[in-house]
Amino acid sequence: MPQKTLTRTTRRTVRSLPAGRQARRVKKAVAKPAKSAAPGESSMAGILRLVPLGGLEEIGRNMSFLEYEDEIVVVDMGLQFPEEDTPGIDYIIPNIAYLQPKKDNVRAVVITHGHYDHIGAVPHLIGKLGNPPIYTLPLTKAILEKRQEEFVNAPKLNIVPIKYGDKVKVGKHFELEFFGVEHTIPESMGLVIKTPVGNIAHTGDFRLDRDAQGDIYRFDEIERVGKIGIHTLIIDSTNALEEGYGIPETEVIKNLEELLRKAKGRIVLATFSSMLTRIGEIIKIAEKLGKRVILNGRSMRENVQIAQRLGYIKTKKDTFASVQEISKYKDDKILVISTGAQGEPTAGLMRIANGEHRHIQIKHGDTFIFSSSVIPGNERSVQALTDNIARQGALVYNSKLLDIHSSGHALAEDIKLFIKTVKPRYLVPEHAYYYMRYAAGQLGVEVGIPEKNIRLLENGSVGLLTKDDFKVSEETVPVYYVMVDGLGVGDVEEVVLRDRLTLSQEGMIVIIATLDRKSGKLVKNPDIISRGFIYLRQSQELLNEIRGRIRSIISRIPRHQPLDSDYLKSLLRDQIGQFVYHETNRRPMILPVIIEI
Amino acid sequence: MPQKTLTRTTRRTVRSLPAGRQARRVKKAVAKPAKSAAPGESSMAGILRLVPLGGLEEIGRNMSFLEYEDEIVVVDMGLQFPEEDTPGIDYIIPNIAYLQPKKDNVRAVVITHGHYDHIGAVPHLIGKLGNPPIYTLPLTKAILEKRQEEFVNAPKLNIVPIKYGDKVKVGKHFELEFFGVEHTIPESMGLVIKTPVGNIAHTGDFRLDRDAQGDIYRFDEIERVGKIGIHTLIIDSTNALEEGYGIPETEVIKNLEELLRKAKGRIVLATFSSMLTRIGEIIKIAEKLGKRVILNGRSMRENVQIAQRLGYIKTKKDTFASVQEISKYKDDKILVISTGAQGEPTAGLMRIANGEHRHIQIKHGDTFIFSSSVIPGNERSVQALTDNIARQGALVYNSKLLDIHSSGHALAEDIKLFIKTVKPRYLVPEHAYYYMRYAAGQLGVEVGIPEKNIRLLENGSVGLLTKDDFKVSEETVPVYYVMVDGLGVGDVEEVVLRDRLTLSQEGMIVIIATLDRKSGKLVKNPDIISRGFIYLRQSQELLNEIRGRIRSIISRIPRHQPLDSDYLKSLLRDQIGQFVYHETNRRPMILPVIIEI
Repeated sequence: MPQKTLTRTTRRTVRSLPAGRQARRVKKAVAKPAKSAAPGESSMAGILRLVPLGGLEEIGRNMSFLEYEDEIVVVDMGLQFPEEDTPGIDYIIPNIAYLQPKKDNVRAVVITHGHYDHIGAVPHLIGKLGNPPIYTLPLTKAILEKRQEEFVNAPKLNIVPIKYGDKVKVGKHFELEFFGVEHTIPESMGLVIKTPVGNIAHTGDFRLDRDAQGDIYRFDEIERVGKIGIHTLIIDSTNALEEGYGIPETEVIKNLEELLRKAKGRIVLATFSSMLTRIGEIIKIAEKLGKRVILNGRSMRENVQIAQRLGYIKTKKDTFASVQEISKYKDDKILVISTGAQGEPTAGLMRIANGEHRHIQIKHGDTFIFSSSVIPGNERSVQALTDNIARQGALVYNSKLLDIHSSGHALAEDIKLFIKTVKPRYLVPEHAYYYMRYAAGQLGVEVGIPEKNIRLLENGSVGLLTKDDFKVSEETVPVYYVMVDGLGVGDVEEVVLRDRLTLSQEGMIVIIATLDRKSGKLVKNPDIISRGFIYLRQSQELLNEIRGRIRSIISRIPRHQPLDSDYLKSLLRDQIGQFVYHETNRRPMILPVIIEI
Repeated sequence: MPQKTLTRTTRRTVRSLPAGRQARRVKKAVAKPAKSAAPGESSMAGILRLVPLGGLEEIGRNMSFLEYEDEIVVVDMGLQFPEEDTPGIDYIIPNIAYLQPKKDNVRAVVITHGHYDHIGAVPHLIGKLGNPPIYTLPLTKAILEKRQEEFVNAPKLNIVPIKYGDKVKVGKHFELEFFGVEHTIPESMGLVIKTPVGNIAHTGDFRLDRDAQGDIYRFDEIERVGKIGIHTLIIDSTNALEEGYGIPETEVIKNLEELLRKAKGRIVLATFSSMLTRIGEIIKIAEKLGKRVILNGRSMRENVQIAQRLGYIKTKKDTFASVQEISKYKDDKILVISTGAQGEPTAGLMRIANGEHRHIQIKHGDTFIFSSSVIPGNERSVQALTDNIARQGALVYNSKLLDIHSSGHALAEDIKLFIKTVKPRYLVPEHAYYYMRYAAGQLGVEVGIPEKNIRLLENGSVGLLTKDDFKVSEETVPVYYVMVDGLGVGDVEEVVLRDRLTLSQEGMIVIIATLDRKSGKLVKNPDIISRGFIYLRQSQELLNEIRGRIRSIISRIPRHQPLDSDYLKSLLRDQIGQFVYHETNRRPMILPVIIEI
C-alpha cells in the first residue's frame, strides 16, 4: 500500500466547487439574461424553457421539465442515494420549489422506466404537483403502483398507459411520441416532445444491444427519431468515458451460463432486483440446466412477480421453489437469485453471509456470483462481503471487465452512433457528473455537432430555446437538496448534516451547569456527559480537570448584574473546547446548558 | 442507475464475521493445541512461533514476528488507514499486547521498505518494545528518522543500516539475510530469517519488473533465496486475483511521456509522494522535454529531498522551480508533481482544485494526470475531485487499466514465478483480505505446493513450526484494533465508535429534567437540546409534545420513596425514544440527565 498524507480532517467527499458553481464552458454559452426564472412569473412568449432539476451533477435524482407559456411537461422523478456527506439520510429527491406554485400548469409527467433513480420521488412529489397524469408503459406502471402502496398518505396515481410509437397530444402546445430503447429493465423508453420551437428528444437511460449477427435491437426506433427531425437531444452520458461498444447481453448470458454449468454445488447469484431482463435470462438458463430457482429478498420476489404477470418472465411450472424447500433439492439443482450485490446491510445476500438467514447457510462447495457492477462508494462493503463469503468456504466470482461492458448505459462508440443517427442541432448530455458529460459532448463533436451547439447545463440551469437558438439563462431555479429521512421530507437541513458529520468525527460533550439565580453560584458540581469522544469512565482525571475549569470560569463571572447565559455558554464552549483540544488534539462538539433555579 | 433496496439502516461496511472468525480452511490445518500462547508464558522448546499481528485481514497495519525460546524478531510495524466504521480515527496500529511483556526478548525489528503501512506505527510502538535495534536500508532509515521527529515524546531510533545480501546474526538463534525486491519505492527488500527449525522467507511488498528485453530485474536475488532452501515463504498476495504479468514500469513511463509530450499547457501530475521510483522517472522526462518541475505538497518535497540526498533522484541544476515562481515560466514549461491523488481533503491537489492554492489556479488548457490507482473507499472523493477540476476547464487523464497493471504488487503469473523459483515447503499468503490470500494459495498449488501446505492464517494466529511441520495453534494472541486519534492511542474504543456511528446516522436528543429532591417534582420546564436530528427550532410542535411527555412520565413516578434516577432515565429513554420514532421514524440517541436540587 502506498503512502498517504496523514491528516486529522474528515474523509468526506469534498463537494465544494469554485465560486458560484460556474462551469466556464457553460458561461460561454450564456447570452444576455432573457428573463428571470423566478417562480410565479409567466414565461416569455415564444420561448421554450428546458430545465434539468437533477441528474446533471450526480448519477440519480433524475428529473427535468419543459415549459412553454402556461404548460409544463415533466420527465422522470427519481431519487438519489445518500452520499458520504449526507449521513443517516434515506435518499435525496428533486427540488420542486419552482414547479409547486405552477402545479396547475403541469400537463403531464412522463416516466421513462422503472428504476428508482427515475421513479423514486413520485410518492413524495406527485401530490404536491396536483397529481397530474403520468404517461408510462405497463411494467413501469405496475412498479409505480406497487411502490405507491407503501406510502399511506400518497394519492392514488393517475397513470395513462402508453405503447412504443404512441403519439399523445398534451395541452395546447405539446405532443409526446415514445420510442423504445434497450436498458437493463424491460419497457425502457425515450421520448420526443414536439413543441412550438422544435422537437426535443430525450433518450432516457439507454444502451445499444446487438444480436448474434451484430444487428442492433430497436435501431429502427432510433432511425425513426432521426426522421422526425430533432432540435435538441438530451442524452445519457454515464459511460461516455468508456471506450468502444457494449458487450451484447447474449455474450454476458453465455458467460454466466458457463459459470453456472461449471459450478458443482449450490449457486447463489446476486444482482439488482431491477435488472429484470437479465434475471429473466438467468431463469431460462436454470431451466436448461435443470435447476430450481429460489428468489431471495423481498424486492426480488416482488419484481419477478410483476414481470411474470406482464409476461416478461415466462417459466415452466416447477421452475421456482420456495426458500423453505431448499433442503429438499440436491445441491447441484439449486440456483438462488438474491438481492444485495452492493453489500447493502439488510439485503438477502448479507443475511446469508452473516449466518442470519433462516434457510441458507454457506457451505464448502457453494458458488457465489456477483452479477452487477459496484456503485462507487460501495467498494468496501462489497469487498468485506466477498471476503466474508470466501472465508466460509464458497467460491466467489466477480468479473470487473464484464461489468463495465455489460452496463445498462451506452459506451462511447454507441453514444456516437446514436447521435449520428438522430442528428440533433443541439446536444445536452445528462445522467452523469460534469466530466462524463463533457466527454459525451466531445463525442457529439466527433460525429459532427458543432462545439458551439453542445450545452453542458447544470441542475437548475434554464435553457431558453427558440426555433433557431438555445441560450442558457443566467437565472437558475432552486435545486438544493431535499432529503428524505424517515417520515420527514426536507426537515433535515445542511446544519443537521453538518452536526452529524462533526459528531461522527469527534463526538460531543454536554456540560450542565446548575446555577442559583440570585447568587449566580453553582448549586452543584457540573454534570458532564459525552458520547463518541473518549470513554470518560476511563478518563477520570480529564473529567475532573474539565469540571475544575468549569467551576473556575463560572466563579469569575461578575455577580452584580443578571446572568447573561449566552455569554456564559460561549465562554464555556470556547475555553473548555480549547482545553480539550490541548489535552487530546480532538475537537468534540461542546454543548453547554445553563440551568438557573 | 439500477434499483437498490431502500432501508433506513447505516451504510457502514459490515465487518461481522461468522462466530469466532473461524475460517474453515484454517480450522482444518489446526492440530491439537500445542500450548497456550498467553503472554508471559515461555515458549515451547524446539518450536518456532510465527505470528502475524496485522496485514492478513486488511491491506495495512503490517507487522509479524517470529519467536524461538526467549528470542523474538519483528518484521515491519505499519499502520492502517481508517475505515467507514471507524469514523474520526486517524489510523489503526498493530496490537502489541503479546509482545509488550516480552519486550526484553525482542532482538531485532526489520523494516522492509518506507511505506506507511510498513513503518507508520514505529513512533507509537518502538518505545513500548524497549527501543530495540531496527535493521533497514538507508532510504528507509532516512524516512523513519524524518517521521520520528514529528513525535516529540518518541525515543531516538536505534537503526542499524544494512545492504542487500548482508547476513546479520541476531541473538543466539536467528540469522537475517536480506534480498532486494522491486516495488514502487527504492530500497525495498525481502528477508530470509534463518532459524533452528528452518529458513523463513518474507517477500515484503514486491512486484516483478522487466527491462526492454523482458528480463526480470533482481531475478538473481530471488534465485539466491531459492538456493538457500526455504521452509516457509510469506508472500505478498495483494494482486493474486489480477491475471497475467505486471506491465513493465518502462512502459508506464513511456505512456506518461506521451501524455506529457501531448499536453499543450501546464501539467499537474498527481501521485503518491512515496512512489519515489516513478517520481524520479517523471523528473527525467521533464528534463528531456525542457520543463521545470514544481513539487506541490509537503510530503512530496520532503520525500524527494531524501531521495536526492541518497542519490535516488538526480537532477540537473535548474530542474526544480519553487511554486512561487510558477508565473515566471511559460505554461508549456511547467510540470507540477503533486500529492493528493486520492482526493485527500488537505493535500496539495485539493487546494488547487478548490481554488485555495496561493500560487496555482486551474485554467483552460491545463492538463491534470492522476498517476496512481484509487484505494478502495476513496472512489467518490476522487470522482468529485476529477469533476471539480474538469469543471474549471482542465483536461483530466486517468487510466484504470494502466493503474492495475503497474501496481507495486505482483500479479498472478508473477506470484507463481516467485513461488516456483523459491520452492518453499509451506506457503503463507499475506498483505490482503482472505479471498485474495486464498487466491494466492491456489496460485501456489498451481506451481506445485501441496494444498495441505498452504497456511491461510489470520491476524493473531500462532503458527507452530518444527523442522518437519507447520501446525496452527488453536490459541491466538490479541489483535483487536488499537486506534490513534489525535494525541490518544488506544483510548477510542468500540463503544466510542459505535456512538459516533449512531450519532452520525440519527443524531441525538439531550433531555434535562431538574427535580426537587424532596418532592420529586419538576422545578422547571425540561430542557431539551438536540443535534443532528432535525432542526428543532422549526419543529416547535414536536418539541412541545416531547416536553409534555417528559412531564407526564415524571408526574407518574411514585413520591413516597427516594428517586431511583437510573430507573427514571431508562423510562425517559424508552418512552421518549418510542414517541420520537413513531413521529419521525428515526432513532436519535436519547440522553436523559436528571438534576436533583
